[in-house]
Amino acid sequence: MTNDDVRTVSPALANYTRNAIVGDLWKRPGLSSRDRSIVTVSALIARAQTIGMTHYFNLALENGVTPTELSEIMTHLAFYSGWPNAFFAVEIMKDIFAERGVGEGQLPQEPVTLLPLDQASEARRAEAVQANFGDVSQGVVDFTEQLLFTDLWLRPGLAPRDRSLVTVCALVASGQVAQITYHLNRAMDNGLTRAQASETLTHLAFYTGWPCVFSAMPVVKDVFASRDK
Amino acid sequence: MTNDDVRTVSPALANYTRNAIVGDLWKRPGLSSRDRSIVTVSALIARAQTIGMTHYFNLALENGVTPTELSEIMTHLAFYSGWPNAFFAVEIMKDIFAERGVGEGQLPQEPVTLLPLDQASEARRAEAVQANFGDVSQGVVDFTEQLLFTDLWLRPGLAPRDRSLVTVCALVASGQVAQITYHLNRAMDNGLTRAQASETLTHLAFYTGWPCVFSAMPVVKDVFASRDK
Amino acid sequence: MTNDDVRTVSPALANYTRNAIVGDLWKRPGLSSRDRSIVTVSALIARAQTIGMTHYFNLALENGVTPTELSEIMTHLAFYSGWPNAFFAVEIMKDIFAERGVGEGQLPQEPVTLLPLDQASEARRAEAVQANFGDVSQGVVDFTEQLLFTDLWLRPGLAPRDRSLVTVCALVASGQVAQITYHLNRAMDNGLTRAQASETLTHLAFYTGWPCVFSAMPVVKDVFASRDK
Repeated sequence: MTNDDVRTVSPALANYTRNAIVGDLWKRPGLSSRDRSIVTVSALIARAQTIGMTHYFNLALENGVTPTELSEIMTHLAFYSGWPNAFFAVEIMKDIFAERGVGEGQLPQEPVTLLPLDQASEARRAEAVQANFGDVSQGVVDFTEQLLFTDLWLRPGLAPRDRSLVTVCALVASGQVAQITYHLNRAMDNGLTRAQASETLTHLAFYTGWPCVFSAMPVVKDVFASRDK
Repeated sequence: MTNDDVRTVSPALANYTRNAIVGDLWKRPGLSSRDRSIVTVSALIARAQTIGMTHYFNLALENGVTPTELSEIMTHLAFYSGWPNAFFAVEIMKDIFAERGVGEGQLPQEPVTLLPLDQASEARRAEAVQANFGDVSQGVVDFTEQLLFTDLWLRPGLAPRDRSLVTVCALVASGQVAQITYHLNRAMDNGLTRAQASETLTHLAFYTGWPCVFSAMPVVKDVFASRDK
Repeated sequence: MTNDDVRTVSPALANYTRNAIVGDLWKRPGLSSRDRSIVTVSALIARAQTIGMTHYFNLALENGVTPTELSEIMTHLAFYSGWPNAFFAVEIMKDIFAERGVGEGQLPQEPVTLLPLDQASEARRAEAVQANFGDVSQGVVDFTEQLLFTDLWLRPGLAPRDRSLVTVCALVASGQVAQITYHLNRAMDNGLTRAQASETLTHLAFYTGWPCVFSAMPVVKDVFASRDK
C-alpha cells in the first residue's frame, strides 16, 4: 500500500506518515537507522502485523541489519512472542530472502558455537526463578534455563545488546509490562544506553500506539531510578 | 462469511450471532446505532481484526458515520493503536470508498482549521506528563503534545466526544487498562454520558471478549465514583 | 509452511521446532495429546493466529478432540476472546469440516439440553458480580448471567473441565491476568489437576511466548497457595 493509497482514505494520515514518521522520527539522532529497524521489526513481529513486514524487513536489510541478524530476531521472538508470531514473519522473510538470493551461506548454520555463559549471573537468575516458580511449573522453569538462557541467548548471530533490545521492544509492543523490569535491566547491562532506551520508546509510540508506551513508562522510570542508586 | 457458513461449524454460534448480537445487542436503547458502529469499528481496528472490517465499515456508513468521520477514526487510531493497525483498516476502507465513489470532496482535505485549544487544561496535562515522564522519554512527551493534544485531538472532522469514545474503546479492546482513567474522564468531560459509557462496555464484550471488559470494569467503576464526589 | 521453508530463514528455528516442540514438548507426560491440542487451539484462537490453525485444527481432530468439541470451543471463545477471533477460526474450520465430510450429524444441533446448573454456586457468583459491577454496566452483568453462566457454560458438547481449560488458556494467551484467579479456581473445581495446570503453562510458553506465561505465573502461584489452606 502506497502513501497515495493512504491518501485516498485519509490525507491527514498520509501527511503524518510522510512528515512525522519518514521525515522526522527516522532522522532523529537518538537512535541509529539500524537500531530503528530492529525496533520496528521487533514490534511488527510481536504484534503479528504482517501488513508492514515486507516493507520493514527490506528496509532493515538496507539499514545494515544482516540476514543472520534477522534470522536470529525471528528465532528469538519465537520464544518471546510465540511460535505463530515468528512463523508469520518467516513466511514473509523467506520470499524476501529468495528474491535477494540470500541462501545458506549467509545464515547461521547449525550447530553454532555459543557465546560464553556468565555462570554466576545465570546461577542467580536460575535460582531466583526456581525459588519463585518451581512449584508453579517446573517445566517452564527448566525450559527457560535450557532453551533460553543457556542456549538461545548465547547464540552468536545477534549481539546480546541487540537481543535485549528485541526483547524489550516485544514486551512493550505486546503490553507485557511486568516483564520489562528484568529485561530492560539486562538490556542496559548488555550495553543499551539510557538515551537509546528512551528514544526506543519514542520510536515505538508510532508503531505500537501511544498507550503501550505510556503503560511502559512508569516501569522504565523505575528501572532508570534504580540504576541511579 | 455468512451466518450459514458459521452454521456449518457451529449452529450455536450462528444462533448467538443472530439472536444475541443482531437481534438484541444492536437494538438496545442505551447507545445509538451510530455509536455502536463507532464502538465496533474502533475495537476491530485496535485489534487488527480484518475479518469483520468490510461488513462493519459498510454498516458504519449506513448507520450515519460519515466518510470524514471514518477517515478521522483511522487517523486517530494510528496514534492510539499503532500505525500498522490503521494501515490494515485503510487497506480495506480504500476499496469500500472506491466502490461507493467516496472521493476527495468527502474527505477532510489538508490543511484543516483546528478546533480551539483549551489552553489551561492542556497546560495542566502537559505539565503533569513532563514532570512524570520528561526524564524517561522527552521524545514521547514532546510528540504527545505536538502531534496529539495540540493537533490530532483538535482536528474538526470528528467531534471530541466521538474521538474520546474511539480512544476508550481502543484501550478496552487492547487491554490497556492503565490508560483508561485519563481517557474515560476526558470522554465524559467531552460529553459521553455515564449510561453511554456503561453500554459501551456491554457492546464491547461481544467484540473484544468478556475478559477485556471485566478487566476494564474496576477502572471504570473508580472513574464513575471519583466523578460523584 | 513446511519445516524446510522455516529452515530457509532460520535453521535454528527449524531445529527448535523439530526438537523442542515436536520431539519433546508434545511427548511430555504431564498432559495428554488431546489436552495439548485443546490448549494449542485455544491459544491460536485467542490470539487470532490464523497461520497455525489449519495444521493444529487437523491435529486436534487426530488427537481425539471431536468435531462437536471443536465447534463448542469456537463458540466458547466467541465470548471469551471476542466474536471476530471466533470467526477467523470458523472460516478455517469450515473448510476442514467440508474436506473431512463433517456435517450436521456430527455437530451439536440446536436446541441442546443444558447440563444441570449448580444453583447455589451460580447465585453466589451472580450476587458478587452484581454487587461489584451492577452500577458500572448492568448490561454486562445481565448478559454474563443469561448468556454465559446459565447457558454457554451448560452446553453439553464440551465437558466443564475442558471448557475451563479453554478459558484459562485464552486468558493466559491474551494477557488477561486479572481474570485468571476466578477461572483457574473454576477449572480446578471442574477437575483440572494442579499438574495439568502446571504443564499447560509449559505448553503455552511456546505458543504464546514466554512473557505471557511469566506474567501468569504469580497469579497461578497464588491460586495454588489459596487452595492449600
